[in-house]
Amino acid sequence: MTPDPLTATFAALADPTRRAILARLASGQASVTDLAQPFDMSLPAVSKHLKVLERAGLIARERKAQWRPCRIEAAPLQDVSDWVEEYREIWEQRLDRLGEYLRELQETGAESAGKIHEMKEKKSGRKKRNHR
Amino acid sequence: MTPDPLTATFAALADPTRRAILARLASGQASVTDLAQPFDMSLPAVSKHLKVLERAGLIARERKAQWRPCRIEAAPLQDVSDWVEEYREIWEQRLDRLGEYLRELQETGAESAGKIHEMKEKKSGRKKRNHR
Repeated sequence: MTPDPLTATFAALADPTRRAILARLASGQASVTDLAQPFDMSLPAVSKHLKVLERAGLIARERKAQWRPCRIEAAPLQDVSDWVEEYREIWEQRLDRLGEYLRELQETGAESAGKIHEMKEKKSGRKKRNHR
Repeated sequence: MTPDPLTATFAALADPTRRAILARLASGQASVTDLAQPFDMSLPAVSKHLKVLERAGLIARERKAQWRPCRIEAAPLQDVSDWVEEYREIWEQRLDRLGEYLRELQETGAESAGKIHEMKEKKSGRKKRNHR
């Protein structure tokens, strides 16, 4: 059973090495040897990761050139962005609630500060009267 | 070995049923029974999916209430959004290139149309002269 495209994309992204390969390809094409270097991985291990990325449509490999460079393909990433965008309202509501809570804290804080100031004033007033 | 948070999130999202559960929870809390209904799944099967979502921090389950409602947790989704946002430039560049290509096509089209018009004008001019 072939997974739906979004499932294949998420499964391909569920690996830190594959995400690092994508990050590297975001700055330009690279060969398998180039990609293997920073990870201290064998070429077959890197090739395996590249196959997963390729099957998910996240990378494409040049057929013409001898060194078969890999390049990033943006379409599935845009699908991920579109999918997650649907939930933006939820985390923005959460941030709004957090902001509200902090404002409340500040107001209560300001009130408490006001009361403390008032108490101090009264105290010093009393002191002043005592000093008279 | 526990996966890094982003890997756990992507792995949890790599399943259409789990994404559908999240979509349901985006509109409000629900019990396991509520969640099982639309999928025609057994409660243990749904519970298994919920455990994956919970471990990834995508949902939380109320401990107080007897029916232990599930609610969506937005933070990991915001992390996905932040991650994919880094690649926005790449797909926007792709769209820019596509737009450029279409503009070029239009211009070449307009040029060709201009030439055809010119040729027609010349022809009709000749015809007019012939008719004199």
